[in-house]
Amino acid sequence: MSDNPSFVLNGIDDVVYEQRPIPEIQGSEVLVTVKKTGICGSDVHYLVEGRIGDFVVEKPMVLGHESSGIIAKVGPNVKHLKVGDRVAMEPGATCRVCESCKAGRYNLCPDIVFAATPPYDGTLGRYYRLPADLAYPLPENVTLEDGAMMEPLAVGVHSVSNLGGLRASQTIAVFGCGPVGLLCMAVAKAIGASRIIAVDIVPQRLDFAKNYAATETYLPIKPNDGESKVDYSRRNAENMKKELVIEDRGKNSIDLVIDASGAEVSIATGFYIVKAGGTFVQVGMGNPNVTLNLGLLMTKELNYKGSFRYGPGDYPLAISLVANGKIDLRPLVTHRFKFENAITAFKATRAGKSEDGKGVIKAIISGPDSED
Amino acid sequence: MSDNPSFVLNGIDDVVYEQRPIPEIQGSEVLVTVKKTGICGSDVHYLVEGRIGDFVVEKPMVLGHESSGIIAKVGPNVKHLKVGDRVAMEPGATCRVCESCKAGRYNLCPDIVFAATPPYDGTLGRYYRLPADLAYPLPENVTLEDGAMMEPLAVGVHSVSNLGGLRASQTIAVFGCGPVGLLCMAVAKAIGASRIIAVDIVPQRLDFAKNYAATETYLPIKPNDGESKVDYSRRNAENMKKELVIEDRGKNSIDLVIDASGAEVSIATGFYIVKAGGTFVQVGMGNPNVTLNLGLLMTKELNYKGSFRYGPGDYPLAISLVANGKIDLRPLVTHRFKFENAITAFKATRAGKSEDGKGVIKAIISGPDSED
Amino acid sequence: MSDNPSFVLNGIDDVVYEQRPIPEIQGSEVLVTVKKTGICGSDVHYLVEGRIGDFVVEKPMVLGHESSGIIAKVGPNVKHLKVGDRVAMEPGATCRVCESCKAGRYNLCPDIVFAATPPYDGTLGRYYRLPADLAYPLPENVTLEDGAMMEPLAVGVHSVSNLGGLRASQTIAVFGCGPVGLLCMAVAKAIGASRIIAVDIVPQRLDFAKNYAATETYLPIKPNDGESKVDYSRRNAENMKKELVIEDRGKNSIDLVIDASGAEVSIATGFYIVKAGGTFVQVGMGNPNVTLNLGLLMTKELNYKGSFRYGPGDYPLAISLVANGKIDLRPLVTHRFKFENAITAFKATRAGKSEDGKGVIKAIISGPDSED
Amino acid sequence: MSDNPSFVLNGIDDVVYEQRPIPEIQGSEVLVTVKKTGICGSDVHYLVEGRIGDFVVEKPMVLGHESSGIIAKVGPNVKHLKVGDRVAMEPGATCRVCESCKAGRYNLCPDIVFAATPPYDGTLGRYYRLPADLAYPLPENVTLEDGAMMEPLAVGVHSVSNLGGLRASQTIAVFGCGPVGLLCMAVAKAIGASRIIAVDIVPQRLDFAKNYAATETYLPIKPNDGESKVDYSRRNAENMKKELVIEDRGKNSIDLVIDASGAEVSIATGFYIVKAGGTFVQVGMGNPNVTLNLGLLMTKELNYKGSFRYGPGDYPLAISLVANGKIDLRPLVTHRFKFENAITAFKATRAGKSEDGKGVIKAIISGPDSED
Repeated sequence: MSDNPSFVLNGIDDVVYEQRPIPEIQGSEVLVTVKKTGICGSDVHYLVEGRIGDFVVEKPMVLGHESSGIIAKVGPNVKHLKVGDRVAMEPGATCRVCESCKAGRYNLCPDIVFAATPPYDGTLGRYYRLPADLAYPLPENVTLEDGAMMEPLAVGVHSVSNLGGLRASQTIAVFGCGPVGLLCMAVAKAIGASRIIAVDIVPQRLDFAKNYAATETYLPIKPNDGESKVDYSRRNAENMKKELVIEDRGKNSIDLVIDASGAEVSIATGFYIVKAGGTFVQVGMGNPNVTLNLGLLMTKELNYKGSFRYGPGDYPLAISLVANGKIDLRPLVTHRFKFENAITAFKATRAGKSEDGKGVIKAIISGPDSED
Repeated sequence: MSDNPSFVLNGIDDVVYEQRPIPEIQGSEVLVTVKKTGICGSDVHYLVEGRIGDFVVEKPMVLGHESSGIIAKVGPNVKHLKVGDRVAMEPGATCRVCESCKAGRYNLCPDIVFAATPPYDGTLGRYYRLPADLAYPLPENVTLEDGAMMEPLAVGVHSVSNLGGLRASQTIAVFGCGPVGLLCMAVAKAIGASRIIAVDIVPQRLDFAKNYAATETYLPIKPNDGESKVDYSRRNAENMKKELVIEDRGKNSIDLVIDASGAEVSIATGFYIVKAGGTFVQVGMGNPNVTLNLGLLMTKELNYKGSFRYGPGDYPLAISLVANGKIDLRPLVTHRFKFENAITAFKATRAGKSEDGKGVIKAIISGPDSED
Repeated sequence: MSDNPSFVLNGIDDVVYEQRPIPEIQGSEVLVTVKKTGICGSDVHYLVEGRIGDFVVEKPMVLGHESSGIIAKVGPNVKHLKVGDRVAMEPGATCRVCESCKAGRYNLCPDIVFAATPPYDGTLGRYYRLPADLAYPLPENVTLEDGAMMEPLAVGVHSVSNLGGLRASQTIAVFGCGPVGLLCMAVAKAIGASRIIAVDIVPQRLDFAKNYAATETYLPIKPNDGESKVDYSRRNAENMKKELVIEDRGKNSIDLVIDASGAEVSIATGFYIVKAGGTFVQVGMGNPNVTLNLGLLMTKELNYKGSFRYGPGDYPLAISLVANGKIDLRPLVTHRFKFENAITAFKATRAGKSEDGKGVIKAIISGPDSED
Repeated sequence: MSDNPSFVLNGIDDVVYEQRPIPEIQGSEVLVTVKKTGICGSDVHYLVEGRIGDFVVEKPMVLGHESSGIIAKVGPNVKHLKVGDRVAMEPGATCRVCESCKAGRYNLCPDIVFAATPPYDGTLGRYYRLPADLAYPLPENVTLEDGAMMEPLAVGVHSVSNLGGLRASQTIAVFGCGPVGLLCMAVAKAIGASRIIAVDIVPQRLDFAKNYAATETYLPIKPNDGESKVDYSRRNAENMKKELVIEDRGKNSIDLVIDASGAEVSIATGFYIVKAGGTFVQVGMGNPNVTLNLGLLMTKELNYKGSFRYGPGDYPLAISLVANGKIDLRPLVTHRFKFENAITAFKATRAGKSEDGKGVIKAIISGPDSED
C-alpha cells in the first residue's frame, strides 16, 4: 500500500496521471482497491466541457465513479466486510442527517460527496475510501466487471422500478439505446414487462437492443424540410403508434416511458405515446431546456418525473437481479483497457467507437493493480 | 315543464337563445332544473375561438357546465334523491366500464359526456339530465350559488389534495390568481397549509388573494429588454426566493407548486422554487407548448403532474369543506346575471371586468326559472 | 337456445338439476354459454353448511362461479365481443355508482351481484348473463379451462401483486398449499420473486408446491402436549427461521407473507417470520376469530391487510400472465367431470381426493353443451 | 457543569437518585441540559414490572424519554444549534446505515439507542447527549413543557397522519382517552377531521376529550353476565353505530380507527365500526395476544397497521402544528413536579390521580437545574 496513482482531470481536455495520498479511513469506513471502472458519459462531459450544468470543475479532480474493487482495509466499526472481499462501490456518500437522507431519498442530499462530481475526486486511482454500507459484497457468480456496472444498472433500477413503478406484464418504451437506456430495458425485462419498445435514430443500436432486451424497436421517421419540432414530433408519434399498434388506453397502451436520450423530439414523442394516466421518467440529460406539450400532460394526467442517480434499495436490487440471472451485463462491456491506457478509453467512449471501428457501449478500465 | 330555453353557441362569437327538447330520463337518471351556472374561462374560449385544443365546436352547442339546480324528476331506480332536492351537478357522465372508470380515474374516460365540451350540450338551459350519482344534495347551509361553484372548487380539490397530496402544515405556491388559482388556495387553507404563496402579475389580484386565502404574495419582477424567458425566469425565481425566504429544502421550502396560469414564465419560475423532491401540478392551460428546465426536473427529482378536471371523491370533499365552514365561496362571486342577460355575463368575463369597471372573478347566471 | 339446465343447491347437502329460464340480456350485457367451471371451497362450504359467515342460503341457488364460456348473444351496445368469442367470466357485477365502485375498489361494492353468493345464482348452468366488460376474451393460446381458472388466479393476483405489492427479487412465504395458495406462489414466480416459501402440514402438498412454483418448503414442527397455540407458534416460527435462514431484516428477510390457510397457527407463525416493516395479506378464511400477537404487529410496524376477491386490473393481469407463459395453470387441474356428474365433483373436492385416492387440487365441471 | 444527578431504576419498585458521569460529546452531537420530562406509561411499566415484552431491565437504568432542554455544549460539526438554544429532544438515536434507516423508516432500526428502553439510560438527569439532528429548536411561542410533550405528540402524528393518512374532512374514532389517545385526537383536529369520536369506559375522560378535541364521544355499554368478548364486542359495536349514526360506507362512515387503549374489546369494536376499505392503526399496547375478527378484516379489506414510535418528519410536524396554534398542549399537563419529587410524579401517574384526587393526564418533572 505504498502509493496511489490516479487519473486526474486538470482542465478541459487535460488529463494526467498523478500520485495522490492514500486516504485515511475512520470508524465505519473501508478502503477499497479499485479493480474495474466503467466510463460514463458524464466523465467524458467533464473532460470535454469542464462542467455539467451548475457543476463546474474548478480544481484538478480524479475521474471515474462506476467502480468495483477489493476491500484493502476496514475501519474498527465495520462488521459485515473483511479485507479481500469483492465489492460494488456506490459512489455517493451522504450526510445521513438531512431531511432527504432521513426520509428515504438520500440521492437528494445537498451535501452528498459523489465521486467525480466537482469538487470531489473519483475512483480512477488505486484506492478509494467509502462508508462501509456503500460497499456491497458481490455474490460469487457476479464478476468485478459486473460490480462496476452496478452503478449504471442502479440508475436503471431507480428509473424503471422505483420511480416508474413498472410491474410484471406491463409495457414500456425506452427512448435512447445508450448504456442507460439498454439497462432500463434490462430491468424491464427482469421485471417481466410484456412489451419493451426501444427507440433510437441509429439502426445498429436498435439491433443491439433487440438482441439484448427489447421486444420491439422503432426507428423514427425523418423530419420534413422546415418542419417544426412540434409538428414533427406529432407526426413521428402518429407513425409510431400506427406502426407498432400503440393506443392511448387498454392492452395496447404503454404504461411507462423512459427517456434516456435527453433529446427534445424523443420527449415530445414520448408524451404522445404514453397511455392516459401513464408515467414518464426522464433519466437522460441533453439540452436542459426543452419544449413540451402541456396539453398532453394535462388531458392525459401524466406523471412526469425526473430521475437523479439512485436511492435506498437500488444497489441491492441491481446486484440481486444480476446474481439471480435475470440480467446479463456482459454483452454491454464492449471494450476493456488497462489503467495506463485510460485516455484511450475516454477517446473511444467520446467517439462512440474504438480505432478499429467497433461501437462502444461500455468501456471498462482496470485498476492499477489488476492483472488483466 | 313545457319548454326548455337554452343558451346556444352557434359559432365563433355567435350565441342565441333557443328552445331545446326537454331531455327524457331513464332508470338511474335525474332531470335537474338548473338554477345557477358559473361562467368558466373554457366557455368564453369556445365562444371566442370555437375550440380548445382538439375539442372543436362543429355544431350548435349549449354552453355552461358549472351548475346547481333542483331535482325536477327522478328515474325509477333513484333512491337517494327526490323532486325538490337542491343539488350540485357534476357535469361529466362517464362510461363506467372502461379501464379508467374502473380503476378510479374516471376523468380519463375516453367516452365521457362532459357538459359544454363539444359535441355535448351544456347546462345553460332550463333542464339538464344527469346520472343520479352526479347530483350531490346540498346541505342546508350551502347555497345554490355555492353549489354552482363546486365545479371549479372540485378542480382545486383534485389538484391540491388529490394529485398534490398537500397535508396540514405543508407549504404551497400558486401561480395565477384567477378563480381556479384562488380556489386552490382556499383548499390549501382548508387543509391547514402553513404557507400559501400567491403569485400574479396584477397587484389587485394579489390583494384579493391575500384577503381571501393566501398568507403571502409575490409580484414578479419585470423582464429586462431582450432578456430570454429562460434567463428571466431564473432571475425572477432568485428574486422570489430571496424576497420570500424560500429554500430548496427544510422548513423554508415549498412542498407543492400549482400553476393555474398556464404561463410559460410561471411554470419555469415554479420549477426553481419548488423544493427538492417536491410536486408540481399543472392545472392552468395556456400555450400548449412551453419550454421547461429538465435539469431542475432531474436534479430535484420533481414530480410534474398534469391535472384534468376531477375524479372520485372530489365533489364530496368540495361540498364537505364548504359545509364545514372551511371554505367560503361567496367572496368569489363578484357578478350575477339573469338568464336573459347571459351574453353580458360572457362579455364581462371575457373583459375581466364589468361595464362599471369592477373586476370579475366569477360571474353567475341564474336559470330561466330563478326568481333572483 | 331452448333450455337452461342448472345445478341447484336447495339446502344443506341437497342439490338437484333443474331447468331455469334463459336470462334476458340488455344493452351492455352478454349471454355466455358456460363451458368450464372450477369448484371452489366456498361452493362446497355452501353445500355442507348452507352459509359462509353472514351469507346464508335461504332459497334455491345455482352453484358455481369460476367459469369460462363462449359468447351466445350480445346486447346492442356491446362492441368488443361477438357471438362465438371465448371468454373468462368475472363473476361479480357491481353497481358502478357507489363510492367504492368509483374509487377503484369495486370488490367492496355493497350491491355486488356475485355468482353463487346468496341470494344470487351461480354459473353451473347452460347460460349465464354478464355485463360485457366482465367477459374477457381469451387469447388463442389460453384454453377454456385456463379461462375458468382465471377466477382463483385473480384472487392470487389481487393478494400478491395488488395488495401485497410484491416486486421482482423480493421474497414471499405462503401458508397453505390449496389452490389459492398455489396460485399465489405462481403469481410470485411470474413477478420474479427470489424466494417463494411454501408452508403446509401435508408433506405431499409441499412436494407439489415445490414442483409447481415454490423455491423452498417448510413443514411445521409438531406441538407439544398441552402447549398453548401462542407458545407453539413462537417455537414453530423460531424453528422455521433457523431451518430456512430467515431474518427480520436484510436480504434474508421475508417481504410479504400470504396466509391462504385461515389457520390460527399459520397466521401467528407468519407474524414472526415477516420482516420488520413488512406486509401480511390474509386471503384464507378459517375460524373468523383468531388470536394475534399485537406486540409483533406494533414493534415491526406490520401492515396486515384483508383481501377480498379481486378488483380493477386483476383479471386482465391474470390473463396476461397466462398468455405470456409466465403461469401454467394446467398442473392444478387434477380432475375433470361432465356436467351430469357435478355431484361427484363436489364429493371429491369435499374429500380432498377422488374415489381412486388421487388428491384434488382443482376439479373442473364441463358445461351441459361441452363435448368433452 | 460539575455533576449529573439522575433518577435511576435499580429494579422493580426500586428507584434512587445517583450521580452519573457527564456524557462526552463528539463531532455532530450536542449536550442538552434537560429541563422538562413527561412521564410515560412505559416509564411506569418498567418501574412496576421491570420489563415491557422482550425489553427487560437487567441493570440500573435512568428513566425518562419525553424531554426538552437547553443546549449546553455543541460538537465541532454542529452548525444549526448553539449553546442556550431551547430544544425538543427526540430520544432515539439510530444507526443511519441499515436498510430501515436508509429507506425512511428509522424507527425500525434494530440498533436504535432509545432513552429509557433497556439497556439505554433515559433523560431524567441533568444532562443528556444527543445527535444534533435530534435536537429540534423550539420556536419562541413554544414552551419547554410543550417541547417535552412533542414526544407523545410525535406518536400521534405518526399514527394519525403518517400511517393513518388522515386528510381534511375525513372521520376518525379513537379508542382510549389517555395522553396518546388525546394527542391523536388533537392531530386529527389540526388536520381538519370532520368527526372525531372519542371512546373510553371512564365518563370523565370522555368529558375531557370532548372539551379538548373530540366532536363526539361514546361510552361503551356494559357486557352481560357470561357474554363472550366476541358477542359483547359485536353488540357494543352495533349500539355504537346506531347511537352515533355510523355506517359502513359513505359520508357517515369512519375512515380511520386508532386504538390507543390496547384493550381487546376496543380493537374488536373498532373492526366493526371502521368503514369498508378503511384503515385501523394500533398504537396502544395492552395484552399482546388478542382475538380478532378476520372475517371483517377480509370482507372489508381493512388495512390494520402497527404503529411504533415515530419516524422522519414526525417531530417537525408536531412542532409546526403547535407553533402554528393548531394544537394546544397545555390542557394535558395536569401535574408538575420538581426533580427531587420524581417519585411522587411516578406514584401519581401510576395511580391515575394525585393525592388530592385530581386525575393525571400528563405529569411533567422539571430538570435539576430548573427554577420552577
